[in-house]
Amino acid sequence: MISEKMVGLVQNSSIIRAMFEEGKKMADIYGEENVFDFSIGNPSVEPPVEVKEAIIDIITNESPNLVHGYMNNSGYEDVRDVVAKHINKTQGTAFATENIVMTVGAAGGLNVIFKALLNKGDEVMVFAPYFGEYRSYVNNYDGVLVEISPNTVDFQPNLDEFKEKITAKTKAVIVNTPNNPTGVVYSEETICKLAMILEDKQKEFGTSIYLISDEPYRELVYDGIEVPYLTKYYKNTVVGYSYSKSLSLPGERIGYLVLPKEMDDFANIVAAVNVANRILGYVNAPSLMQRVIARCVDAKVDVESYNRNREVLYNKLMEFGYDCIKPQGTFYLFVKAFGGDDIAFANAAKKYNILIVPGTSFGCPGYCRIAYCVDHSKVVGALDGFEKLAKEYQ
Amino acid sequence: MISEKMVGLVQNSSIIRAMFEEGKKMADIYGEENVFDFSIGNPSVEPPVEVKEAIIDIITNESPNLVHGYMNNSGYEDVRDVVAKHINKTQGTAFATENIVMTVGAAGGLNVIFKALLNKGDEVMVFAPYFGEYRSYVNNYDGVLVEISPNTVDFQPNLDEFKEKITAKTKAVIVNTPNNPTGVVYSEETICKLAMILEDKQKEFGTSIYLISDEPYRELVYDGIEVPYLTKYYKNTVVGYSYSKSLSLPGERIGYLVLPKEMDDFANIVAAVNVANRILGYVNAPSLMQRVIARCVDAKVDVESYNRNREVLYNKLMEFGYDCIKPQGTFYLFVKAFGGDDIAFANAAKKYNILIVPGTSFGCPGYCRIAYCVDHSKVVGALDGFEKLAKEYQ
Repeated sequence: MISEKMVGLVQNSSIIRAMFEEGKKMADIYGEENVFDFSIGNPSVEPPVEVKEAIIDIITNESPNLVHGYMNNSGYEDVRDVVAKHINKTQGTAFATENIVMTVGAAGGLNVIFKALLNKGDEVMVFAPYFGEYRSYVNNYDGVLVEISPNTVDFQPNLDEFKEKITAKTKAVIVNTPNNPTGVVYSEETICKLAMILEDKQKEFGTSIYLISDEPYRELVYDGIEVPYLTKYYKNTVVGYSYSKSLSLPGERIGYLVLPKEMDDFANIVAAVNVANRILGYVNAPSLMQRVIARCVDAKVDVESYNRNREVLYNKLMEFGYDCIKPQGTFYLFVKAFGGDDIAFANAAKKYNILIVPGTSFGCPGYCRIAYCVDHSKVVGALDGFEKLAKEYQ
Repeated sequence: MISEKMVGLVQNSSIIRAMFEEGKKMADIYGEENVFDFSIGNPSVEPPVEVKEAIIDIITNESPNLVHGYMNNSGYEDVRDVVAKHINKTQGTAFATENIVMTVGAAGGLNVIFKALLNKGDEVMVFAPYFGEYRSYVNNYDGVLVEISPNTVDFQPNLDEFKEKITAKTKAVIVNTPNNPTGVVYSEETICKLAMILEDKQKEFGTSIYLISDEPYRELVYDGIEVPYLTKYYKNTVVGYSYSKSLSLPGERIGYLVLPKEMDDFANIVAAVNVANRILGYVNAPSLMQRVIARCVDAKVDVESYNRNREVLYNKLMEFGYDCIKPQGTFYLFVKAFGGDDIAFANAAKKYNILIVPGTSFGCPGYCRIAYCVDHSKVVGALDGFEKLAKEYQ
């Protein structure tokens, strides 16, 4: 009786989510301390103390009907203003309230922008490896996902193939940097070239191509690396941001879209985004969390905890003979599967109670994603298993 | 550049939301105390004190990574369990955790169930007058909204027309009782007849027809009236609930779906709903609010405040010569427009700084909705304007 479109989606439901469920079941069987679940990006680092303080202060001192009530579908104006000013301060941009729309996380934001933009058959390009849910977000609005194959040398996007595959039907391009699942940050050189290709292709086809920058990991970077802010390189850029990782609030569903006024058709897109936010049933981003964000824009989780996991895991995996690129950001590490079959390799890891996600889910077979947003003890505890797993193949 | 589907939606964007914006602008011009904004269902009654206590206790005493983290896309199991038991206690049902899916409000829940159920061209029936956003929720998934014309005698659904209009393509029927905009509660007799018609038509066409019960106003009823719980009358019922009105938390976007295990294709629908919740970008209902709900299932706003508004407004309008049915629930009153043209009448009301919504938005021209979820002083303050408005036409 369910929708035909849903039948396949249910059958191929997120392998990440399935492993998350499996991890909980394994914990019941083997004991939580003996299961090493690297399957899902659920932060282990606590939200910064400012979040707790903000919630208590707001609940104690602000009007409850304001805090929990309806506001404009785009969010509280004062919150949007604080967010715009924060981006301007940290990125050197010049956004105002009208450029910010508060959303139900970045996933909500992406759905809203695709609902606003896509006609049936419009193409949306992604660079493999990519977060597999993008396919559903695009298909929800009858768009067609076009994959660019991975560049497994350094996991920067494959721009030659990109250039070839752009057509008059290309409506949008998704980039996700720092990247899930590789941890790679797209370089400024990459971004400049990407922008130039898009400018050329817009002229060639007489179209507008929107660059959708999904940025939940912007704050999670290591070794002082800079993440270019894409609106500065290409005017038809929409940024989708989330506080899920930067403030460890993934369950709260709070984020925003940035819509620069320089973009083509700005006024209509803003109006469409506002309506889409409402009719998709989000109505608005959760109200209390919006007010929390206004007080916590400068706060950030303790990235050093993730860095400690990164260093230990990367160095040990290299020592054990694994092949992987050192992540510059996020809390993921994308390791080459011994034997070449990522699904078989992820299954082999389960023998050691280690859960990792096959790269096939990210459009990049032959690799597996390790989400190291876990207690450090879990990283240390899994090392023995990772070593034995490597030895099986050596 | 925006989606063709969005062009019309932007142009005809919610008149209620437009008035909400207009009311704020009028307040800036005439002073907040001189504007009587009855346009939107934004509760004026504070959330019960249990909500504040729960938030502070959770934030102070529970693990922040649990409170703000990811959980199963359907929600925390303990929360779903508490919700199921609460429904069982109050309605005499027998639901379990598996029958409850926490959602981003009722609007999110309705989008999720339509995404799960609808194929292109499937028909979804509504009884006028109805909440205008239903049209978008159905159209989002390429469904076709089929309107049943209003019965303006007592605003119970027009079941003769309903029976005639059901076809092999009818996939779902939306009911909303207590009803927005009329405040009418569908009687048990109505529900029994409705269920019987659906049973007959399912047999006739060999189909499953799902009854979608949108219930944000269940708790807001007066004079001790009972609101039948629809799963007890018809097994293919899905309940969409929201805490927006019962706990005055509309901005928080928290609600749930009830999916009875007796329904046709239960397992697939549950799986599809879980996936739809995720891929539509909700991912899950806001986590802190889920945990608040678990502690506040027995709490309820002070309905007596709304009742006081209802009594004064209804009695005075009758005295002034208006024609309307006394609402049995909700915080809306649906009044006949003098002169017959609801849009002209709503515009005429603006002369007295009174904002009300034309019934055309609810598929019922000739009437206007007055949302009396305002401070009592606003009801009293608007009476003079309502009287003068009536006199213009008498």
